[in-house]
Amino acid sequence: MNAPLSEISRIPGLKRIETFSRDEMGALCMERTRAVYPHDQVYGRFCTIEEYIDCPPDEVFAYLADVRSLEEWTWSTRGFEATDEADLLVGWDRLADDTRIWCRTVANAAARTIDYHCAWDQGRALWMIYLMRVIPAAVVLNRPGSVVTWTNCRHPFYDHNPFPEAAPDDRDTWVGDLWPFFYAGHVVEMENLKKILEFRHASGLPMRPWTD
Amino acid sequence: MNAPLSEISRIPGLKRIETFSRDEMGALCMERTRAVYPHDQVYGRFCTIEEYIDCPPDEVFAYLADVRSLEEWTWSTRGFEATDEADLLVGWDRLADDTRIWCRTVANAAARTIDYHCAWDQGRALWMIYLMRVIPAAVVLNRPGSVVTWTNCRHPFYDHNPFPEAAPDDRDTWVGDLWPFFYAGHVVEMENLKKILEFRHASGLPMRPWTD
Repeated sequence: MNAPLSEISRIPGLKRIETFSRDEMGALCMERTRAVYPHDQVYGRFCTIEEYIDCPPDEVFAYLADVRSLEEWTWSTRGFEATDEADLLVGWDRLADDTRIWCRTVANAAARTIDYHCAWDQGRALWMIYLMRVIPAAVVLNRPGSVVTWTNCRHPFYDHNPFPEAAPDDRDTWVGDLWPFFYAGHVVEMENLKKILEFRHASGLPMRPWTD
Repeated sequence: MNAPLSEISRIPGLKRIETFSRDEMGALCMERTRAVYPHDQVYGRFCTIEEYIDCPPDEVFAYLADVRSLEEWTWSTRGFEATDEADLLVGWDRLADDTRIWCRTVANAAARTIDYHCAWDQGRALWMIYLMRVIPAAVVLNRPGSVVTWTNCRHPFYDHNPFPEAAPDDRDTWVGDLWPFFYAGHVVEMENLKKILEFRHASGLPMRPWTD
């Protein structure tokens, strides 16, 4: 079972041990490993955060896959209600005045992925995507509980609102102007998520009290 | 559809707009957003990297889900062969002398997740887990192609090899000692992945030539 080296050797710029030695790889990694990294290098194009949560993965998944959880663990999204379209909800993002937010949750129980497809102001193009995944900490950290990852990608609409006519007339905030603060803001919300789930799990409380 | 505020209010330390104002949230986010971040803060407990690849998501997924791809895009894992156990392969990590690496690939086509469950020296406890996911760039970046995310979690075995008796006698390298260089090393391998997939996709070549 050998890689087809003759074909791979035609691809320019690859760094593979056959042609890029341990010494070369070591030197390159030393060069690229820094004491500090600029904000834009880490969080400019993508924004991923990760957290350990002391709550079983199936509980964390079921919580996140239920859109009502957003009203608890996010700082500012509230009041989601059904729309005419199946699985598409509309609520408010109280981050800004008079701002509606549409959301469709796409979850995969086997992979424990939960994607929130959202948008401000209109619900036709859901381009603000929060990609989350729940991983059993037993597997990746050798302890009970869950690891949650959360990635956002810098969609070009963050830089240019394509639906300005849908925005409230007097609103002076655009969600994309806040991209530089997504790292900090999402950490606050991930901390909320961790506190809620760990509190309920440790107390034996229902994880989703609204379903009772 | 309102969150159960009476119960949530019992959970200490939450930052929600009802009790944590826009001004307070703005100040906190300003405080936590820095010009630079220390290596350990970003890559100490978890190591995630993300990349855009100009190749359709189903092609990227099929490539990564085929374990033979590792022999192309990784710097140092080579020569995977079947073992007696279904789906468990064993190869060599040429990063270190005489080092065997076991690997089981767990993929979910619907969520496009690909997890490599690996370990050096023995194949009973697969604790080195590479969590990858392929996302359609059309959805998250409004362009053709794929976004690939890759997360590693700092399993405690990185810090203490639990199977020293399985290691070659004279090996002076332990994979966990390299954790600080995972960020840099994985970026090199992600660059390989991007170059291979973009080259073949742009040239109309077979994406997995070993299947022909």
